[in-house]
Amino acid sequence: MTDTIFLKIISGDIPCHKIYEDAHVLSFLDIGPLSRGHALVIPKQTAVMLHELSDDSAAALGRVLPRICRAVLRVTGATDYNILQNNGAIAHQAVMHVHFHIIPKYSQDSGLRMRWDTIPLEPMEGSSLAKAIADELMA
Amino acid sequence: MTDTIFLKIISGDIPCHKIYEDAHVLSFLDIGPLSRGHALVIPKQTAVMLHELSDDSAAALGRVLPRICRAVLRVTGATDYNILQNNGAIAHQAVMHVHFHIIPKYSQDSGLRMRWDTIPLEPMEGSSLAKAIADELMA
Repeated sequence: MTDTIFLKIISGDIPCHKIYEDAHVLSFLDIGPLSRGHALVIPKQTAVMLHELSDDSAAALGRVLPRICRAVLRVTGATDYNILQNNGAIAHQAVMHVHFHIIPKYSQDSGLRMRWDTIPLEPMEGSSLAKAIADELMA
Repeated sequence: MTDTIFLKIISGDIPCHKIYEDAHVLSFLDIGPLSRGHALVIPKQTAVMLHELSDDSAAALGRVLPRICRAVLRVTGATDYNILQNNGAIAHQAVMHVHFHIIPKYSQDSGLRMRWDTIPLEPMEGSSLAKAIADELMA
């Protein structure tokens, strides 16, 4: 599960269309893009899902994400875009190494297309669920 | 455009189901969830889109994101999830203040549902596009 194509890209064994690299982060074009300029941003830390990342790795990735977005927008001319990061097979994760997608959106029919089917959140249910998650964060 | 409901939540003028707060970041449940435990993570910095965030604000947000995911997963029992951050009206952004969605995915038919319609990326096109973006990042 951890011997992914992204590890081979990080090590240089497989080439990529590189955009950015520092001690913690690598960024390159997705070779199966949803739209022109579709880029990936990955940590060098070996981790399948986002919640497994170290604080430092996650902070380094977060810090550089807006900078990479600015460069993608300037070059492509896009003004709208989606950031997507999928965790788990049923959540559309195809490569089992953490990766953030930057997906320019040029029109309603380009880029990431999604359905937005909301469910109700009762106030009492919301309060108890938020408290449970907040308590878990403090634990 | 900048006087959003999220600023009123940050200031405390409007209540929320709060999960987490620090100097840079606030997290709370989405009141129109796609699935149980759907949470939002926002910077306190006033910015409409991700590429407008300061390095420090983005790093603080990135750093805490995995921790909040861990707490959401532990409480909800979900194993799979999507991180989504929409920029611009055609990219599904509804509140014009940067926000990351954490959306648990319990089954194919719950949570975030999307289409994945790829387009070709010719190697030459990929090389020149990656170089242009990399050059822009170095500029």
